[in-house]
Amino acid sequence: MDEFDWIQTYLAPLAGPEGLQLLDDAALYTPRGDQDLILTQDSLIEGIHFFKGEYGAGTANRLMTVNLSDLAAKGARPVGYLLSVAWPKHLKSADLQGWMQAFSKGLKTEQERFGFSLFGGDTVKTDGPMSISATFIGVVPSGTAVLRSGAQDGDDIWVTGTIGDAYLGLRLAQDTSSILKHNPTPEDLWVWEEAFRHPIPKLIFRKTLRRYATACADISDGLLSEAGHIAKASRKSLIVRLDDIPISSASMKWCVGKDNKAKRVELATAGDDYELLFTARPKNADHIQIGAAKLNLAVTRVGKVTEGQGVKCLGSDGKALILEKLGYSHN
Amino acid sequence: MDEFDWIQTYLAPLAGPEGLQLLDDAALYTPRGDQDLILTQDSLIEGIHFFKGEYGAGTANRLMTVNLSDLAAKGARPVGYLLSVAWPKHLKSADLQGWMQAFSKGLKTEQERFGFSLFGGDTVKTDGPMSISATFIGVVPSGTAVLRSGAQDGDDIWVTGTIGDAYLGLRLAQDTSSILKHNPTPEDLWVWEEAFRHPIPKLIFRKTLRRYATACADISDGLLSEAGHIAKASRKSLIVRLDDIPISSASMKWCVGKDNKAKRVELATAGDDYELLFTARPKNADHIQIGAAKLNLAVTRVGKVTEGQGVKCLGSDGKALILEKLGYSHN
Repeated sequence: MDEFDWIQTYLAPLAGPEGLQLLDDAALYTPRGDQDLILTQDSLIEGIHFFKGEYGAGTANRLMTVNLSDLAAKGARPVGYLLSVAWPKHLKSADLQGWMQAFSKGLKTEQERFGFSLFGGDTVKTDGPMSISATFIGVVPSGTAVLRSGAQDGDDIWVTGTIGDAYLGLRLAQDTSSILKHNPTPEDLWVWEEAFRHPIPKLIFRKTLRRYATACADISDGLLSEAGHIAKASRKSLIVRLDDIPISSASMKWCVGKDNKAKRVELATAGDDYELLFTARPKNADHIQIGAAKLNLAVTRVGKVTEGQGVKCLGSDGKALILEKLGYSHN
Repeated sequence: MDEFDWIQTYLAPLAGPEGLQLLDDAALYTPRGDQDLILTQDSLIEGIHFFKGEYGAGTANRLMTVNLSDLAAKGARPVGYLLSVAWPKHLKSADLQGWMQAFSKGLKTEQERFGFSLFGGDTVKTDGPMSISATFIGVVPSGTAVLRSGAQDGDDIWVTGTIGDAYLGLRLAQDTSSILKHNPTPEDLWVWEEAFRHPIPKLIFRKTLRRYATACADISDGLLSEAGHIAKASRKSLIVRLDDIPISSASMKWCVGKDNKAKRVELATAGDDYELLFTARPKNADHIQIGAAKLNLAVTRVGKVTEGQGVKCLGSDGKALILEKLGYSHN
């Protein structure tokens, strides 16, 4: 089975009409006159963004999630994507086929869950690790995209869900013993593992975001880091209250002890949450609460936007903490 | 200088308004109501698609060309692109900076030449070779895109430019002695090297293509291979006459000898030409000749579309040649 065969066997069934059966080298998309397009691209490298050899449905899910979460932050609905795969030369044909089968099944699951299709892409071989990349196309009604640059003085800062569970899920996968010494319950482990393995991009919140959010970013590299991105793009200062950052009861137990504050900071600067951080006028707080409640989505106010620049994180005493770094980066 | 710094230093100046100063994680593009979008994605891997360590303007040019050539084949005009870079971890910061400077200059040259801008993208580190990928967005007037699937029984098959010069340029770069034994003139070497190092995507031909071409593909992996793609997508047979495939006088000299036919086949199955192969109704032959002549572009008829499937390549005696393979693939 060569490259052409497996594209036709595994990927062509995932293509929408825009994908021209993957028999062309490009996709043809007819935009609606009343929508803007959101374009975003994110890549995953084996051994850095996913574990070595883990080529299956889980990695397909992660590739979709990192990209869909970017669309979610803009208030967009996904319509399609282009997929780029560089697979290691040394992979045997049978292994590659097994991988393609599992991977394409994972893609299909996400496509069906959120209603979008494959538009095209390309495949190449590499001497290096597996690398996969997707470019997503999303749509919003014209003029309604939520950008990072719209935060205003006096806005509330909000966050969806809870922060840090995915980080403890990653720790659990990398170094079980350091987590188990805190005696977590099976339910705690479940919370962390699910947050890490099956994060859900918050696409469902798009209508409320488009209506009330002045700025938004998805939390892929840490809450404080993303606050920094909004601060920079909006040319404002974001003040975050550490104690108000929502933490699950599982992770709260992990924070207990004399290094409680340091651990909360650790969660606020960790990656992979795929929750949304957004800003909104205080007068819209009730609308936001109601919009989220209808979707069974937790939202929490964690701070304020002010004139100035950068991010400040306040401790219980109201004083700004001195932080070494705001977020997570893959070294 | 960290990743964020060099994105802001070298890439942000290349961004159009759609790129939101590269301070957001996505691009915002407002489509016109009277255009269709063409989306295409192509990647280059160090050591496979470009020489090891050759990170500069030449590689930027190649990345742009492989993608722009796909747009050219659809009759599209480029408007923007997303760039994905995975750079080797082991690269020193100073080297990376030098590379970024040269690479971004190469991107700028192509942007200015064809009038498009950077929309966004992402950067990651890898344990493997440098990998770069671009997703291009092009536009055509609604309903005028030229696809691979439109070839009709009785159509002429046409090709732009000359075929195989880039292949001899690659051979020259890889194994000079095997080429020099044919005693090429300095001008011959120039033709081959230019064809390989600075191929020009045939975007300029888009209006004639949109008006008269029934199907089109760019010749990245060999003329006969691309004929095969049109044949498959159109569910027709493409008959190509080997002797009619246009060959430059430099490459013609290389073909001289008792293995003339084998060498012509070698050129017709080699990669990297970035010329266009297209089909059109015979009644439009004059229009095509005139359209090309106005642009100082050579076009040559090389065969016919018939009912059936696959590609046949006919020798001087009118008999179909038996070929091992139709095109070039990167192993």
